[in-house]
Amino acid sequence: MSKPTPLSGFPEFLPEQRVVELQVIERLGRTFELHGFANVETRAVEPMDQLLRKGETSKEVYVLRRLQAEGDVDADSAAQFGLHFDLTVPFARYVLENAGKLEFPFRRYQIQKAWRGERPQEGRFREFTQADIDVVAKDELPFHFDVEVARVMAEALSALPLPPLKLRVNNRKLIQGFYAGLGAPDPSAVIRIIDKLDKLPADKVGELLVSEGGLSEDQASRCLQLAEISAADSSFVEQVRVLGVEDDLLETGLAELAAVVEGCRSLNGDRFSVEASLSLARGLDYYTGTVFEIHMEGFEFLKSVGGGGRYDALASDGRTTYPGVGISFGISRTLVPLIHRGLLGSDRKVPSVVMVALADEESRPHSDVVAQRLRARGVPTEVAAAPQKFGKQIRYAERRGIPFVWFPGGDGGADQVKDIRSGEQVDADADAWTPPAEDLVPRIITHTQEELS
Amino acid sequence: MSKPTPLSGFPEFLPEQRVVELQVIERLGRTFELHGFANVETRAVEPMDQLLRKGETSKEVYVLRRLQAEGDVDADSAAQFGLHFDLTVPFARYVLENAGKLEFPFRRYQIQKAWRGERPQEGRFREFTQADIDVVAKDELPFHFDVEVARVMAEALSALPLPPLKLRVNNRKLIQGFYAGLGAPDPSAVIRIIDKLDKLPADKVGELLVSEGGLSEDQASRCLQLAEISAADSSFVEQVRVLGVEDDLLETGLAELAAVVEGCRSLNGDRFSVEASLSLARGLDYYTGTVFEIHMEGFEFLKSVGGGGRYDALASDGRTTYPGVGISFGISRTLVPLIHRGLLGSDRKVPSVVMVALADEESRPHSDVVAQRLRARGVPTEVAAAPQKFGKQIRYAERRGIPFVWFPGGDGGADQVKDIRSGEQVDADADAWTPPAEDLVPRIITHTQEELS
Repeated sequence: MSKPTPLSGFPEFLPEQRVVELQVIERLGRTFELHGFANVETRAVEPMDQLLRKGETSKEVYVLRRLQAEGDVDADSAAQFGLHFDLTVPFARYVLENAGKLEFPFRRYQIQKAWRGERPQEGRFREFTQADIDVVAKDELPFHFDVEVARVMAEALSALPLPPLKLRVNNRKLIQGFYAGLGAPDPSAVIRIIDKLDKLPADKVGELLVSEGGLSEDQASRCLQLAEISAADSSFVEQVRVLGVEDDLLETGLAELAAVVEGCRSLNGDRFSVEASLSLARGLDYYTGTVFEIHMEGFEFLKSVGGGGRYDALASDGRTTYPGVGISFGISRTLVPLIHRGLLGSDRKVPSVVMVALADEESRPHSDVVAQRLRARGVPTEVAAAPQKFGKQIRYAERRGIPFVWFPGGDGGADQVKDIRSGEQVDADADAWTPPAEDLVPRIITHTQEELS
Repeated sequence: MSKPTPLSGFPEFLPEQRVVELQVIERLGRTFELHGFANVETRAVEPMDQLLRKGETSKEVYVLRRLQAEGDVDADSAAQFGLHFDLTVPFARYVLENAGKLEFPFRRYQIQKAWRGERPQEGRFREFTQADIDVVAKDELPFHFDVEVARVMAEALSALPLPPLKLRVNNRKLIQGFYAGLGAPDPSAVIRIIDKLDKLPADKVGELLVSEGGLSEDQASRCLQLAEISAADSSFVEQVRVLGVEDDLLETGLAELAAVVEGCRSLNGDRFSVEASLSLARGLDYYTGTVFEIHMEGFEFLKSVGGGGRYDALASDGRTTYPGVGISFGISRTLVPLIHRGLLGSDRKVPSVVMVALADEESRPHSDVVAQRLRARGVPTEVAAAPQKFGKQIRYAERRGIPFVWFPGGDGGADQVKDIRSGEQVDADADAWTPPAEDLVPRIITHTQEELS
């Protein structure tokens, strides 16, 4: 077999890069669990009729076929299955399937791969990992859960070693109420047109609001003014009021959006911020209130790196409706570009903190015992692969990023441990010595684009 | 949408069951990392030509096709991809692809799903999770790594909350040397016939050894005697010597097998044992020395729940050969039957240790602050969903298995926390109170089959 080449759209990491992804997944999971979110993992496949319900993504599905079913497609039930393209469709199915066994309101997080048969491009993959949190209830889901999922995701994101992330929030009731109160003949049409603001200049969108949205020049202008409003706190409410539109749904939307933004405010900082962003619509029809989008500073070309919102009918079996609110965060979407550009990495190719040196092959059992004593106290340790000269063994550790080399003492002499970064070497007891806490797991290393250029 | 039904062969867990799987994965990973094994995750798909190299599984592969490529299969490159059916084929490809960037000997662990289009049956799934450890080197891999992977997997398995597991070990050099030293015309044919001992009675296998293996009655009898030998220590060596066969390869095999069994001996106990088992052959041609198989007591119908061995050519690019040794453990294979029979579970449907009660909706911000103070010290906490009567709120916690309910004090009164299992209620400070360590994460609960019947 000749050397294989990477598969476009199916990113993989080297061990020292995978460390970053593992730590990100671990930190996200820890925060979600601190807030009582239970982990769920769903199978990779769903029946095709489930996957095709979201019209716009139907073409991106990978369909499964058993090889032995070749030429006999109809007889093979697997022909009706495809790989899931997100974690929302499988979760909605899971909720319906297990409704009798779940306790509602049900908080769940899910960190899994999904697949889309898209043309791969940077930040768009055919296989990718994402982290979703959702709260789903039976019949009714109180609004305070919108604030909760926003705050939980905000807390989780603010702990990640990434460029500054921004959680943009808006509310469909707010914009729909505004357009209705303004007298727009078709508020949904206005939403669709306003949604083009990230692709078209404002004056062009203004023209469309008149020609296609059926608005007057003044109405169109006020819609554009609304879309320009953004704020890191509830001060946006006053800015909206200045536009002079009155509507009950608008009022509900303003109050809800203010609650979400204020609920996340304490998490605003250098690495994370929340913003009421009144141009945000998220085209998808099923959002009915709060909508979210996550952006990463300096990586605007990725567009959003996450999103979500409130859907009053996440799932329904005809009799019972299950409303939900949730946010999805793109782990591959953010990590792959950062890691492949060298902006994010770790200082170690192996988990080992210590490598126990080997005087000769005969003393391997002794080195093994030393290693096992260190492991017994939670210190990841490996033994040198071969009894080379100590200088070579140290370089072996160095190449892997292992910070400490341990020299078992011979003939009653004390063991010694050497920090190969500083060169410092001291007597040590394998039953007592502990590395500095910050050396216990590989360290994440970040660079800015400026540093590398 | 009507209520969906489970998909045969694609097992899923309820949240309180998933907890068990998560903890098993976490414990395995922790042990592997303590021994310096680095985590790797490979993409789910491989080119079909890679997947079809292992002849016997070729029919079980799920082939991927993009939905939009319908009727245009040849033009779609994804038509050449399938889901991996194990973690060895992808790992071999990963090693070749990244050989220049990896440090050898390379210890890696991988815990991922794999897929096979088999007829589903109990313990055989179409989608399943497995945990693999392997050490791979360039050109040469010293034998001591055989002992190491056995010991690492033994240590990992002995820490799992499962029925007793047995690691059976044998060595291809030992049996091949024995058959050759015995004068068998075709030692490989003897291996294939002896391998049928788990399906056929010994006398029938003896007949085949004569009729198809070309052995004399006496030779056949000694082969059967060899296959009967098993031991928890190196005492098997003497039992083999009694059979009076002499051969250099046999000697090497005996020494290697003794080293592996002795290396794991300290881990023998109630829940785990290692056994030299001289009938074990593992049909696969690529094993060249040590072979492993894992069995679970009381679940013999599952056959093996893991296996592996030494392959002197895990991967090769034509110039360089990468020998490896590894063991794979079936997480779904063991957990799904245990969990679905009620033999294994957890005591909580949510990660929350504490539920903060809610006096009325107005005091939600106060309850939120209490919860956040507990979380700040690592205590998973949720706030009651609605300000029902306290009795109802306690039952809400009870249904989820949350052990503690927290009552925020009003008007200067102290907070109180109630252990709803014992009923004990005490004054508590959210900045200081900590639950007992054993309540911090959900507890695994095991039952024996006798208890349930």
